[in-house]
Amino acid sequence: MAKSFDDLFVFAGESNRELARAVCKYIGVPLKKNKTRKFSNDNLWIQLGESVRGKDVYIIQSLSEPVSDHLMEMLMMLNVARVGDARRVTAVIPYYSYARSDKKDAPRVCITARLVADLVQASGADRVITMMLHSEQVHGFFSMPLDHLTSQSVFVEHFKKYNDGQTVMVSPDEGFAKETVRLARALKLPVSIGTKVRLGDADVRIDAILGSSQIKRRAIVIDDEIATGSSMIKVMQALRENGAEEFILACTHGVFTRKAMERLQEIPDVVEIVSTDTVKLGKKKKGIDKLTVLSIANVLGEAILRNHEGRSMGSLFTFWPGE
Amino acid sequence: MAKSFDDLFVFAGESNRELARAVCKYIGVPLKKNKTRKFSNDNLWIQLGESVRGKDVYIIQSLSEPVSDHLMEMLMMLNVARVGDARRVTAVIPYYSYARSDKKDAPRVCITARLVADLVQASGADRVITMMLHSEQVHGFFSMPLDHLTSQSVFVEHFKKYNDGQTVMVSPDEGFAKETVRLARALKLPVSIGTKVRLGDADVRIDAILGSSQIKRRAIVIDDEIATGSSMIKVMQALRENGAEEFILACTHGVFTRKAMERLQEIPDVVEIVSTDTVKLGKKKKGIDKLTVLSIANVLGEAILRNHEGRSMGSLFTFWPGE
Amino acid sequence: MAKSFDDLFVFAGESNRELARAVCKYIGVPLKKNKTRKFSNDNLWIQLGESVRGKDVYIIQSLSEPVSDHLMEMLMMLNVARVGDARRVTAVIPYYSYARSDKKDAPRVCITARLVADLVQASGADRVITMMLHSEQVHGFFSMPLDHLTSQSVFVEHFKKYNDGQTVMVSPDEGFAKETVRLARALKLPVSIGTKVRLGDADVRIDAILGSSQIKRRAIVIDDEIATGSSMIKVMQALRENGAEEFILACTHGVFTRKAMERLQEIPDVVEIVSTDTVKLGKKKKGIDKLTVLSIANVLGEAILRNHEGRSMGSLFTFWPGE
Amino acid sequence: MAKSFDDLFVFAGESNRELARAVCKYIGVPLKKNKTRKFSNDNLWIQLGESVRGKDVYIIQSLSEPVSDHLMEMLMMLNVARVGDARRVTAVIPYYSYARSDKKDAPRVCITARLVADLVQASGADRVITMMLHSEQVHGFFSMPLDHLTSQSVFVEHFKKYNDGQTVMVSPDEGFAKETVRLARALKLPVSIGTKVRLGDADVRIDAILGSSQIKRRAIVIDDEIATGSSMIKVMQALRENGAEEFILACTHGVFTRKAMERLQEIPDVVEIVSTDTVKLGKKKKGIDKLTVLSIANVLGEAILRNHEGRSMGSLFTFWPGE
Amino acid sequence: MAKSFDDLFVFAGESNRELARAVCKYIGVPLKKNKTRKFSNDNLWIQLGESVRGKDVYIIQSLSEPVSDHLMEMLMMLNVARVGDARRVTAVIPYYSYARSDKKDAPRVCITARLVADLVQASGADRVITMMLHSEQVHGFFSMPLDHLTSQSVFVEHFKKYNDGQTVMVSPDEGFAKETVRLARALKLPVSIGTKVRLGDADVRIDAILGSSQIKRRAIVIDDEIATGSSMIKVMQALRENGAEEFILACTHGVFTRKAMERLQEIPDVVEIVSTDTVKLGKKKKGIDKLTVLSIANVLGEAILRNHEGRSMGSLFTFWPGE
Amino acid sequence: MAKSFDDLFVFAGESNRELARAVCKYIGVPLKKNKTRKFSNDNLWIQLGESVRGKDVYIIQSLSEPVSDHLMEMLMMLNVARVGDARRVTAVIPYYSYARSDKKDAPRVCITARLVADLVQASGADRVITMMLHSEQVHGFFSMPLDHLTSQSVFVEHFKKYNDGQTVMVSPDEGFAKETVRLARALKLPVSIGTKVRLGDADVRIDAILGSSQIKRRAIVIDDEIATGSSMIKVMQALRENGAEEFILACTHGVFTRKAMERLQEIPDVVEIVSTDTVKLGKKKKGIDKLTVLSIANVLGEAILRNHEGRSMGSLFTFWPGE
Repeated sequence: MAKSFDDLFVFAGESNRELARAVCKYIGVPLKKNKTRKFSNDNLWIQLGESVRGKDVYIIQSLSEPVSDHLMEMLMMLNVARVGDARRVTAVIPYYSYARSDKKDAPRVCITARLVADLVQASGADRVITMMLHSEQVHGFFSMPLDHLTSQSVFVEHFKKYNDGQTVMVSPDEGFAKETVRLARALKLPVSIGTKVRLGDADVRIDAILGSSQIKRRAIVIDDEIATGSSMIKVMQALRENGAEEFILACTHGVFTRKAMERLQEIPDVVEIVSTDTVKLGKKKKGIDKLTVLSIANVLGEAILRNHEGRSMGSLFTFWPGE
Repeated sequence: MAKSFDDLFVFAGESNRELARAVCKYIGVPLKKNKTRKFSNDNLWIQLGESVRGKDVYIIQSLSEPVSDHLMEMLMMLNVARVGDARRVTAVIPYYSYARSDKKDAPRVCITARLVADLVQASGADRVITMMLHSEQVHGFFSMPLDHLTSQSVFVEHFKKYNDGQTVMVSPDEGFAKETVRLARALKLPVSIGTKVRLGDADVRIDAILGSSQIKRRAIVIDDEIATGSSMIKVMQALRENGAEEFILACTHGVFTRKAMERLQEIPDVVEIVSTDTVKLGKKKKGIDKLTVLSIANVLGEAILRNHEGRSMGSLFTFWPGE
Repeated sequence: MAKSFDDLFVFAGESNRELARAVCKYIGVPLKKNKTRKFSNDNLWIQLGESVRGKDVYIIQSLSEPVSDHLMEMLMMLNVARVGDARRVTAVIPYYSYARSDKKDAPRVCITARLVADLVQASGADRVITMMLHSEQVHGFFSMPLDHLTSQSVFVEHFKKYNDGQTVMVSPDEGFAKETVRLARALKLPVSIGTKVRLGDADVRIDAILGSSQIKRRAIVIDDEIATGSSMIKVMQALRENGAEEFILACTHGVFTRKAMERLQEIPDVVEIVSTDTVKLGKKKKGIDKLTVLSIANVLGEAILRNHEGRSMGSLFTFWPGE
Repeated sequence: MAKSFDDLFVFAGESNRELARAVCKYIGVPLKKNKTRKFSNDNLWIQLGESVRGKDVYIIQSLSEPVSDHLMEMLMMLNVARVGDARRVTAVIPYYSYARSDKKDAPRVCITARLVADLVQASGADRVITMMLHSEQVHGFFSMPLDHLTSQSVFVEHFKKYNDGQTVMVSPDEGFAKETVRLARALKLPVSIGTKVRLGDADVRIDAILGSSQIKRRAIVIDDEIATGSSMIKVMQALRENGAEEFILACTHGVFTRKAMERLQEIPDVVEIVSTDTVKLGKKKKGIDKLTVLSIANVLGEAILRNHEGRSMGSLFTFWPGE
Repeated sequence: MAKSFDDLFVFAGESNRELARAVCKYIGVPLKKNKTRKFSNDNLWIQLGESVRGKDVYIIQSLSEPVSDHLMEMLMMLNVARVGDARRVTAVIPYYSYARSDKKDAPRVCITARLVADLVQASGADRVITMMLHSEQVHGFFSMPLDHLTSQSVFVEHFKKYNDGQTVMVSPDEGFAKETVRLARALKLPVSIGTKVRLGDADVRIDAILGSSQIKRRAIVIDDEIATGSSMIKVMQALRENGAEEFILACTHGVFTRKAMERLQEIPDVVEIVSTDTVKLGKKKKGIDKLTVLSIANVLGEAILRNHEGRSMGSLFTFWPGE
Repeated sequence: MAKSFDDLFVFAGESNRELARAVCKYIGVPLKKNKTRKFSNDNLWIQLGESVRGKDVYIIQSLSEPVSDHLMEMLMMLNVARVGDARRVTAVIPYYSYARSDKKDAPRVCITARLVADLVQASGADRVITMMLHSEQVHGFFSMPLDHLTSQSVFVEHFKKYNDGQTVMVSPDEGFAKETVRLARALKLPVSIGTKVRLGDADVRIDAILGSSQIKRRAIVIDDEIATGSSMIKVMQALRENGAEEFILACTHGVFTRKAMERLQEIPDVVEIVSTDTVKLGKKKKGIDKLTVLSIANVLGEAILRNHEGRSMGSLFTFWPGE
C-alpha cells in the first residue's frame, strides 16, 4: 500500500544541507532545490525551486548557529509551502535548540520553546518531526502532530562492542538520566548518574555521583547536547576520583561552541568524542581525529517515509518499545 | 492606586468551597453565590448568582475527585462568565491534577495537561492562577497569562522550629528535589534525595538515597502530592536503614486516596502529617490527630488581590527571589 | 469507487461498547482496542491500541451517565487521534445529552450544548456524527461538518404492523411534534399532540391534547428521550380520559433514570416499552419483559461507511426525503 | 460608579437612522457621523466621522432590506472600529433577520444565522445586542457576549388598557407561543395558540386553535415578525369561526413586504396594526392610519447604557423576571 | 497521474453563470445545479443541488453588481460546501472588485479588500483563484493559498495582428504600467504611460504622457477595469494631442456602469472596445458592435484542472515566465 | 482626561536604544530595563526588568541588521509582555524592513511582510505602531490596529528654508512619488519623478525623468529607504543631464549598507545627506560631515502618548489632513 514518491518533496534550509542530502539518499528521492539570499537591508529572501501544489512537503532545518537566521529561513520556507498549496507541510527539525527554554525559571523570561512552537504553527506547518528534545514536556508545547525521534539506535549500534565488563554508562546530570538508563539497558551496561543539586547552603555546590559503585575503568559519558563542554569536564573529574581511567564523550546534538571540540580532544584520557549529525559540524571537525560522527540520516529518512505512507513509527520514538 | 473591590467577583465550584471562603475572607469580599445541579440525565446545570457584566471574575476550582465533574463545572462557570461579558475571567486552580500527564511516555496516550489547558482556553478563561504544578514545563502548555504560585511560605513558617540540628529535609524522588532544596535552604536544613532510577537491569529497582550522610534522627519528607502514600512508605524504609527515627510527612496537594491518611497515621514513627488545603480534606481528616492542615488561602488571596490591582507578585511564585 | 477499509479505524469509549461492536459488525471491521484507566488521583488515562497515522478515525461515545467522565474520555481519545496524525477524526455521539441545554432560559446559565461543541472542536475533531438532537438548532452550534441522523427508519420497521385503524401516534409535547408527525405519516397513522403551555394564570397548568378526536384505543407515545418517565405518565393520564386503553411507550434515547423502567413496566395498560440502543441499557433492562430494544447500529454503521467513502447520506438524515 | 459618556460612541448604518437617533436621545449622546457611498463598480465605501481610539463603540444596524448591503455596511463599520483601536466594539442589531435560517431543514442549505454570527465575529465585534430572535437557540450561534433583549415592556404598556374581559391574546403558531403566554400573563389576558401541524395525511392541513374556548370578541394576534401578513390572515379566519369580531395585529419586527400594510389595513375587522420600530417603516407607513408604532429605542438605549457602565440588565431580557 | 473528474464539482453563483458554463465546458464536467432565492424579508436562501461529501468543490462568483448580494451568496455557498464535508473548497473569484479598497488612504476607512479576505476564510474556503487584482499586494491579504491568474494570454492572442509599426500600447496610469509593459513586450509593441500625479500646486492636475515619443497612429489603451470610462476618455485626449488617431480600448474587468459602453462606442475614433468576460456583460453589450469579448474561461478552467490534479500553474500567473 | 503615566511602560530591543531613550524623554517616562543575552548554543535569552502586570506596554524595535536577531528579540519581548499579563502590548517598529517583500513577484517566494505580521500577532502583540511602510497596502497585512506614522513633519521643518525658487524635490521612482508630492506641496516646491519602467525591449532600460522641465539648480532627492545608494546615484546622473547642480539626498530609513554613506559623501555635488533615526546609524555616521540626522523620536513619542490616552492621531499619519 506504499504511496508513490512522486509527491514526496524534501527541501532543506541552509543549516545542514549535508544531512538533508543523506536523508534524501536514504529515502531515494532528490533533495529539491531552493535559494536563500539576503537583500542589502539584511532581509532574507527565499525561493523554493519547484511547485509544491498538492505535494507532501518536508522542510529540514536545524536551529543551529546562526539560530535566528535559520529559524526565520525555516518559517519562510514553511509559509511558501503552505500558501503554495502543498497537501501537507512538515517541519523536520533535527535540533530544536530552543527546547532548553522550556520553563519560567526566572521572572519575566520567555518560555521560548513554546513561542517557537507557536511561530512554526503560525507559519503554516501541519506537523513536526524532531529528535531528542531537551525535555519530554516540550512535546506538549505543540498542538499539531509531532514525532519525537530517538537517536538511541545509532548509539546502540556504535557502543555494543563495549559490553566487556569494563565499561559504565554515565549521565552528567539527572536531566538526561532516564534516556541514559534506557540506552544502558539496551547495551547491558551499568549506569552512574552525576548530580548537580545544591545541598544545605547556597554557596556550596555538591556534585555527587549516583551509583558510584558501578564505575568502571572506561566511562561513556552521554548527554543530549554538548555546547562548551564544561559539564563534561566537570563530570570527568568526579569520575576520575571514583576510578575511571578513560572516557568516551557522546551526545546527540554536537553544538561544540567556543573551540569545545579542540579542548575536549586535548584531554589525554578522552579516547573518543561521539556525536550525531543533527548539527552541521562542518569545519569544526577538521583535525579532530578523536571524533566519530554517527549519522541519524536514516532515522530521519525512515520517519519521513513512514509519515508519507501513513505507517506507524514504533521504535523510532524516544520511548522504548516494550516499556 | 488600589482599585475598588466593587468589581472583584469570586465564585467557587463544588470542589473546595471551604478554601474559597477563606480566600474571600483574606481579600475582604463575599464569596458570590452560584448553583450547581444535575439533570435527571446526569447533565450538569450551573448558574452564577450575580451578573458579572464588566467585573473582574475569579472562578476557584481544584481538579480533585470527582475530577471530570469538577473540570466540567469549572469550564461551564468560566463560559458563563465569558459570555456574561465579564471584563476578565481568571481560572483559579489550586490543584491542577492533570499536570502529571505532561508527556507522551507511551505510544498513543494523551498529554492531558495540554488538552485541559486548551479546554480552559476554549471555555473563555483569560488567565490562570495555579499552585505547585507537577512539572514547571506545564506552564508552557498555556498560552494565556498564568501565575504559578508556591506553597513554600506556609511550610517555611510551619517548619522553622525544626532548625535544631536534628532534622533533615527529604525529597522522595528527583522530580521534587529542586523544590525541596529551595525549601531546605530557606529553613537552613540539610537535604537528602530519594532516587527511583533503575540501574543495569530491568527487574531490579534500586532506591538509593542521595546525600545519605545528611540523614538525621528526624526526617521531614515532602512531596508535591500524596495520593496513596506508597512513595512515602518506601522512602521511609530507606531512611530508617540510614538512621532516621521519626518522620514528618508533608505535601502541598493532599489527595489521600484509598484510606491513605489512616494508613499513614497508623505508622508509629510518623509523628505528623502536614498538608495544605488545595484539595478539600473534608471527612477524610476525621480522627486523624497527626494531621496538620496549613492553609494556602492567604497565598491565593494575595495573588488574586495583586492580579486585580495590577501589582507584581514577587515571592508568591515558585522561583525564589534572588535566584 | 469504494475505498479500502484498511484505513477505517473505529474506537469506542466506555459508554456503550456493545453498540460500537454492533456498528463495527455492520461495517465489517474490527473494533479497535483502547484502554481507559483512572490514576489514584481520579485523573483519566487513555491509550489507543493502534497507531492511527493517516487513518480515517471514528470515536464512538454517548454522553450518558457518568456524563462528565464519558465526555472527558471522548475528548482525550479525539485528542490522541488528532496529535497522532490521523487523516480525519470523527466524533460519533449517538446520544448528545447536552443538546437539551440549548438556550439561555434563565439569567447566567450556560448554553452547554454550545460549550461542548467548542470543546469537541478544541480537542481536535474534524467532524461529528450524532442522532436525534433535542432541537434542530443545535446543529448550528458546531462549525464543523455534522451528520444529524434519524432513528425513524427503525421505528417505521417496528411499528408498521399497527396500521390497523386502532392506533394513534402521540407526541407528549410540541417539542417533538414535528418528528412525530413525520413518523406517523410514514406509518399512515393519525397523530395527537400533548401540550404543556400554561394559559391565563401562573398557577394553573393546562395539559391539553391537540387533535384529541384522533385518539384511538391504542396509543404509541413517542419522545426523543425518556429519563424519569414522568412526562409519559402525565400524557397517558390525559389520553386515558380521551379513550385510550393501551399504550406503547417509545423513545430514541433510553436514559431511564431513577428506576424509570420498572415504574413504567408496572403500569398495567403499558403493553410495550420501545427504545433504541443509543444509550447502553445494561443491567437496567434485566427483568423488563415489556422492553423492546431496536438497534440503530446499522444506521450509524451506514453513516460511517458513507462518510468514509465520500457518498451522500440521503435518508439517514432527520429530514424526510421528498419534504 | 457611572462612567463618563465621553467615550461612549454610537454610530448607525443606513438601515434605520431614525431609530438610532432616538436611541442616542435616550442615552443623551449625539449620534456620531459616518458616510456610506458606493463606488461606480457598486463596491461599498464607508468612513466613520470621528476617531474611535479607546472608545466604547456601538454600531446600530438592522438587517432589513436591502439585507446584503446593510449586512456588508455593518461588517465594514465594525471592522473600521476594530482596527481603529476602539476599546470595545458592540454590534447592535435590532432586527437580526437571518435568525430564521437557524436549522438545516433541507439537504445542503445554509444555517445562515450561524454563518452571519461568524462573519460578525470575523469583522471584529466584541459583543452583540439584539432583540427578539426568531428562536432562542440562535443565542448559542454566537460565542461572544450577546444581550438578547425583549420588546415585551412596550407591548405591556400599550395593551394594558385591554384588561376588560373582552380580549384574548393569540399566537398564530406554536413557535411564538412561549413569548405570547409570557406577555398575556403580564397583561392578565387569556391565550389561544394557532397550530399549523399536519395530521394524518400529507395533503390535508388542519389549522386548529389551541385554547379556542378562551377566544373573546377582541383578539390581539401577536408574532415576532410580519412580512407578507399571510399567517395573520389565516389565523384571523380561524378566530372568526370561533367568535372573534375584531383584531389587533402586533409584531416586533415590522417587515411588511409586498404591500402587506395596505392589505392588512383594508381588512374591515382589523382595528389596529401595532409594530415596533426595529425595522424602518419609512414611507410604507404613509396613509396607514390603523398603524401604531411603539418605539423600542428606550430599551436599546438602556441596554447600551448598562453595557457601557457594566450594570446588570435584568428585565431587558426575553426571559421574564421571577420565572 | 491525472485524477478522476468524478470528484471535481463546479458550482456557480448568480453573477456570471455564462462564464461558469464555459469554464465547465473547457474542463469537461457539468456545471452542478444550485438554487438561490430570496425570502419575503429579503434574506438570501441557497441550496446546492448535489451532495459535496468528499468532493473537490469550486464555487465561481464575480463580485459584480449587486456586489453585496453576490458576496453573500458566495459566502453562503462556500459555507454549505464546508459544513457539507467537501474535501476542499475553492472560491473562484474572476473579478474581486474590492481589491481596489486596499489601503487606508483616508482616516477611518475600511481596507475592505482585507475584510472580504477574512470573510471568505471565515465562511470556510480553503483556497482562492482570482484574476488581475487591482494591486499585487492584495495577494498578501489572504493567508490561504491563492492563485493570481493573468488575462495576458488572451490579449496577446487578440492583439498580435497589430505588430505593424503603427501601434503603441498605452497604460492610462502608473498603477497598471507594469502589466502593460509586460503585455507590450510579449507583443513587441512600444509603450506609453499616462500619469495622474499632481505637481507643484494642489489645484492644477497635470496629466502627462510618459514616453510620448513612442506614440503612434493607433493606440491600444489597456487597464485592469473600465467602470464609467472617464479615465479612458481623459487619456485619449492627451494621446490625440500627441498624434494618435485611432483607439482600441481594452480591459480585463468590463464593469461598464452608467452607460459607459454606449458613451465609449459613440466616440468616433474609438474603433474597438475589448473586454474579457470576468464580469457578465449581459444586456449591456446589446447593440455595441464595436465590442469584442475575449473569454478567459479557458484560463480559469485550466487553473481549476491543474489545481484539482496538483500540477504547477506556470504561465497562468500574472508574473511573466523568465522574469 | 489624561491617564496617569504610572502604567505606561516602554521597553526597547537592541536595535536602536538611542532612539528609544529619546522617545521616552519626549514622553517623560524612563526607558524600562531589560536584558538580552545569547546562550552558548546561540539561543536568545531575554528578560524584562520590571513586572508588566496590568501595564500599557510598548516594545520599540527596528528590523535593522541583524534583522533575524532583532525580529526574534522583539517577538520574545512581546510574548513575555503578553503572558506577563500586560493590559495591552504594542509593537513599535520604526523601520519595518520586510515591508519591501509585499508581493509574489516571482513563483514560490514568500510575501514575508505578511508572514512577519502573522508572527507579530502570534507572539501576542495587540497593536502596532510603524512608520513609512514601503507600500501602503502592507497596512492590510495586519488584522490588528496599526498606526502608520509619517516622517513628513520633520522633513518639512528641515527643508522649509529651500523655498527659494532654486530647488526641486525629486522622487527616484514612481513608488515613492505620492509621498514626495505630498511633501513638496507642503513645502511649495516643484516635483520631478524618476522612472525605471522598461519600454519596448527587454534589454534596454530607459530611466526617464517625469516633469523634467521643473528641474532646478538644487535637487532634494528623497526616498523611503537608502540601502546601497545605487538608486540615488543613478537618478543624480539623469538630473545632472537636466541641469541640476547640487544634491541633497534624503530618506526616512537610513540603512546605508556596504559603505553607502562614505560613497555618497564622496560625490562632490552632494551637499547634504539627510536621514531620520528610525535605523540606528551608530558608528557609520562617524566622519560623515555631510550627514544630518533628523530625529523622529518626538513623532513616535507623541503617537505612544496619544495611544496611551486614547486620543486621535491626526497629522501623525501618512495621509495628509485635508486630502
